[in-house]
Amino acid sequence: MSAFAPLPDPPYYAVIFATQASGTDAAGYGRMAETIEDLATRQPGYLGIESTRGTDGFAITVSYWADEAALLAWKAVAEHALAQKLGKSRWYKHYTLRVALVERHYDGPEGR
Amino acid sequence: MSAFAPLPDPPYYAVIFATQASGTDAAGYGRMAETIEDLATRQPGYLGIESTRGTDGFAITVSYWADEAALLAWKAVAEHALAQKLGKSRWYKHYTLRVALVERHYDGPEGR
Repeated sequence: MSAFAPLPDPPYYAVIFATQASGTDAAGYGRMAETIEDLATRQPGYLGIESTRGTDGFAITVSYWADEAALLAWKAVAEHALAQKLGKSRWYKHYTLRVALVERHYDGPEGR
Repeated sequence: MSAFAPLPDPPYYAVIFATQASGTDAAGYGRMAETIEDLATRQPGYLGIESTRGTDGFAITVSYWADEAALLAWKAVAEHALAQKLGKSRWYKHYTLRVALVERHYDGPEGR
């Protein structure tokens, strides 16, 4: 499976989720990330996800959504799943989440 | 220095750059990434950058820009810098670049 999400015609939405893991319960963090990704793929309007994490525990996950309705539906599901788990553990030292409308895209390299 | 970019009031622009390193010339790739980030920080309208790379060579870098003019000026600078170097090396097996307008954001966790 490619690590790249597909490129449907813009506009579509991106949710940029940056996290710094606390370092406690790395296995729990990994399971949670998998659960969230698995839930995302089953949502209506889900377009794709890209995720990577450095050895310092700083991770960026970008999920892509067809429209705002899909985004809001996903938000409710993700918050519910997180709320169920976050009381028990503390994976994130800090996170930021940005909702952005993708206007255009490119890929490459060309000609290879 | 925090790995997180600051959160100015939306709207502002995000450039989501996902890359799969080819595995050839990892040192050259690292230098190039540093050069590009260094150039970005000196551009007008630069707001911040977040970047992480997994052990599989898949990397996500998100840079943030005040407005479309800042974005376009940065595009010209980045393309020039890349064009000078890309003839000599082949860091990226594949890349995607998405330009997105950040509409809102959140951070947390709350209450800690």
